[in-house]
Amino acid sequence: MEPESQEDSAVDAANGDTRHADKMRKKQAARTAIMATKTREQGLLIVHTGKGKGKTSAALGMVVRAIGHGMKVGVVQFVKGAMTTGEKAVFGAFPDSVEFKPMGEGFTWDTQDRARDIAVTRAAWEEVKRMISDPSYHMVLADELNIALRYDYLPLDEVLEVVSARGEMKHVIVTGRNAPEALIEAADLVTEMTMVKHPFRSGVKAQKGIEF
Amino acid sequence: MEPESQEDSAVDAANGDTRHADKMRKKQAARTAIMATKTREQGLLIVHTGKGKGKTSAALGMVVRAIGHGMKVGVVQFVKGAMTTGEKAVFGAFPDSVEFKPMGEGFTWDTQDRARDIAVTRAAWEEVKRMISDPSYHMVLADELNIALRYDYLPLDEVLEVVSARGEMKHVIVTGRNAPEALIEAADLVTEMTMVKHPFRSGVKAQKGIEF
Repeated sequence: MEPESQEDSAVDAANGDTRHADKMRKKQAARTAIMATKTREQGLLIVHTGKGKGKTSAALGMVVRAIGHGMKVGVVQFVKGAMTTGEKAVFGAFPDSVEFKPMGEGFTWDTQDRARDIAVTRAAWEEVKRMISDPSYHMVLADELNIALRYDYLPLDEVLEVVSARGEMKHVIVTGRNAPEALIEAADLVTEMTMVKHPFRSGVKAQKGIEF
Repeated sequence: MEPESQEDSAVDAANGDTRHADKMRKKQAARTAIMATKTREQGLLIVHTGKGKGKTSAALGMVVRAIGHGMKVGVVQFVKGAMTTGEKAVFGAFPDSVEFKPMGEGFTWDTQDRARDIAVTRAAWEEVKRMISDPSYHMVLADELNIALRYDYLPLDEVLEVVSARGEMKHVIVTGRNAPEALIEAADLVTEMTMVKHPFRSGVKAQKGIEF
């Protein structure tokens, strides 16, 4: 839950504390009325896409929140595998809460072998399927699955079928640029990360804590 | 580091494994050449803004990565405070790596007291300043600081001065919608989270693991 529509009060706020309090009182009442209509809990299909940074990071942040509330989470990474990542070290400290499977073998331009990429993707997807069908998982993250779909390494129909058949209270998060339109259609929560500025452009390399 | 510009090979990839390997070989060579020009490491000023979800989550994901690499991180939350969050529980397990300060008192429409909001914001900002000037911190997250700036609870000039004077290798992350233009100007990495679909619209309430 985050602040919404505070924009219009920014100017007024400076006009005096009493007026501010009045305005905020009205906002609070309006918000309370709105929130009273939000009563359901539901497992969400969440998609993080777009060319900007933060798609995987935001999913990792959700994993952190979930395990902090005692939920069990499964994480499968479709691209990352060999490299040592910060998330690997941290999630390793919560073996009962997170099953973490970095199953990628690098980027496709590193492997240069389509048949092998498909086999690796299939193995990762089987793990995702298992976690989605196992009721003990509250949240499943399929990190960079959109990349695999973009290359047709997996049938989109199969993915849509599995995520749509998830348990009522299970959250599934799919990340990666170029999310297929049909996946966006099926999703409950979709955020596009838009790149405004990127430090690679000024010669800065991928760094610990930021990119991995 | 994430896959870039794979789009154009999606169609070709289906045309055969040899052609795929050739194309990937060229991509790999091109990418290697580009990456060779990215040689510097640098402390980044990172801004997550926009109306979409994931601004705070993506910052939390970076905190996870950083502590996973043994970096020390300071986190100050300007809006959240009283509520129990998942991040609080997880970061509490890493007391030597993360100093976590949820210093907000809720949303401004809950407090309805501008003078008090300013005092709370000032106290939180003093913590951020301390962490930024303390060389033992590798990363500092000022969560929802943009909200405080939007309300003029803090002088923008002071914030710009402090973040610009940070140590050469220190990462500072600022989140919140409506990031001031001058902060975006000063930043190295800016992502705008754009809302494509939001489950609040269909009556789903804020949920554990997703919103907090």
